[in-house]
Amino acid sequence: MLLLHLNQTNEDAWAERLRRRLPAYPIVRRGDSFDADKVRYVLVWKPLADAFEGLTGLEAVLSYGAGVDALLTHPRLPSVPIVRFVDPDLTTRMGDYVVANAMMHLRNSAGFLADQRLHRWHNVAPAKGTDVTVGVMGLGQLGLHAAARLLAQGFRVLGWSRRMKAVTGVDTFAGQEGFEPFLAGTDILVNLLPLTPETRGILCRDVFEKLHKGVLLQGPAVINAARGGHQVEADLMTALADGTLGAASLDVFETEPLPETSPLWNLPNCFITPHVAAVSDPEAGARYFAEVILRHEAGEPLPNVIDRDLGY
Amino acid sequence: MLLLHLNQTNEDAWAERLRRRLPAYPIVRRGDSFDADKVRYVLVWKPLADAFEGLTGLEAVLSYGAGVDALLTHPRLPSVPIVRFVDPDLTTRMGDYVVANAMMHLRNSAGFLADQRLHRWHNVAPAKGTDVTVGVMGLGQLGLHAAARLLAQGFRVLGWSRRMKAVTGVDTFAGQEGFEPFLAGTDILVNLLPLTPETRGILCRDVFEKLHKGVLLQGPAVINAARGGHQVEADLMTALADGTLGAASLDVFETEPLPETSPLWNLPNCFITPHVAAVSDPEAGARYFAEVILRHEAGEPLPNVIDRDLGY
Repeated sequence: MLLLHLNQTNEDAWAERLRRRLPAYPIVRRGDSFDADKVRYVLVWKPLADAFEGLTGLEAVLSYGAGVDALLTHPRLPSVPIVRFVDPDLTTRMGDYVVANAMMHLRNSAGFLADQRLHRWHNVAPAKGTDVTVGVMGLGQLGLHAAARLLAQGFRVLGWSRRMKAVTGVDTFAGQEGFEPFLAGTDILVNLLPLTPETRGILCRDVFEKLHKGVLLQGPAVINAARGGHQVEADLMTALADGTLGAASLDVFETEPLPETSPLWNLPNCFITPHVAAVSDPEAGARYFAEVILRHEAGEPLPNVIDRDLGY
Repeated sequence: MLLLHLNQTNEDAWAERLRRRLPAYPIVRRGDSFDADKVRYVLVWKPLADAFEGLTGLEAVLSYGAGVDALLTHPRLPSVPIVRFVDPDLTTRMGDYVVANAMMHLRNSAGFLADQRLHRWHNVAPAKGTDVTVGVMGLGQLGLHAAARLLAQGFRVLGWSRRMKAVTGVDTFAGQEGFEPFLAGTDILVNLLPLTPETRGILCRDVFEKLHKGVLLQGPAVINAARGGHQVEADLMTALADGTLGAASLDVFETEPLPETSPLWNLPNCFITPHVAAVSDPEAGARYFAEVILRHEAGEPLPNVIDRDLGY
């Protein structure tokens, strides 16, 4: 039996899609009458405190969303495997976001938009893509895809991850000792890390100051498409105001929705989007989780199970 | 002998670079004392009325710049071959501009920037690149390169040119009869045509109305990186205001610099850049024209000679 526990999203649409894909498998919702101990899978999004109560026969938690940092802080999370959502549709959308924003920073969009507001014709030539280096933090599925898309546009690409990885066409760095050389070569910094105690607050002044200067017209740029917890917004504010950073693209924030009173909205060199870099598609989600359940019921192992020690 | 006639650019820098690359070949400037009838090549940029006076031994006009539309209107243009500047550096920069702006329109940049000004968190999901079609007008060196770069980002790409061309991965259309089906399939229209009497004013209301609707959040988009003469700015104004177009990127204008009083500056869904999509690099230019002269002096034919009947 599969239990749906989806908050702040359209659970009706999920139920309909999953029932269409799993016509022979029992799917229940919180309002239904069912034996809690018969639930083998629970599909969650923003689970409430009682989400897992009475689920004594649970085999797996299925998490809608690529990041599981919030789920891992749930005080009554059962110790069964957690399957996260991995999907080519979401990966492609994230690649779109990363390339779009890297290209905007390459082309001095913040500078030209500022000139436009002043009706100012100031014809400085932006850098050429082949002269610019993008550094990608996090070399999971999203990071690897973004790196390949950036390489296809002619950027030089660096990669940084917790453990050393070999990636074709990418100069890779790892761990604390690889972090400074990685930053020193990076004109545009892209964050696609999982949020863990080690990566919380990683986008801070100290890091911004170590980025490479002199190639982009207005200074190095930062793109955060992972989690608001990765960024120190006070540091972003000052770095974007004093020229330590030329520009930033932020899709995530310490508090979401970003409060109307946040000073970030007013920064002319900060491109704000409302956590839409890679919106999960319910159709793709239903296809993925139906497949997970069918295969597991047929005796296959669960895919994309998170490592609780690593936090992703 | 090579005569330099470069206005509104740094002729000193050109002279120095060309002399370094052609140490054994005589290079003169307008202020120098020289026999005008000994001049075999004249390198021009924005030539004055007397640019070609007395050049009775001229073998070729060398034009710095990819477009020769302005040069062809020169009333005393001699009837020798005109060599235009074709350069991988310039082509790459144009590709950067086209991809950057296509990706911005894909990602609803105009919409999110408008929301940002209002401190408004409105999380609608942009389209996915693989669901969006970019139509490229003009399949010369710049158009072919841009098409390849767009394909590498997952866009579907259509191409339109005067005469039918086969391009790998691109659905091509040609001539007047191919224009409407080309437009009907296009979400983002990119203009890289040469400016000729046939293409003047091609970016007009009638064309905007025929573009494909329903894929991009705010409607179809137009990118003009060719010549201001291609666009009817009054039509752009109304189409961007009434929703016929969702957004535009303009790098060129009917009058340049764009007058401070132009209403285009104030359109929130129009991204204005000051004719910097593909700035010619003097270093690359000197390399190219030195090569042209050396090869021609050695008996080889001139490359990239324009066809005066076609106008490009």
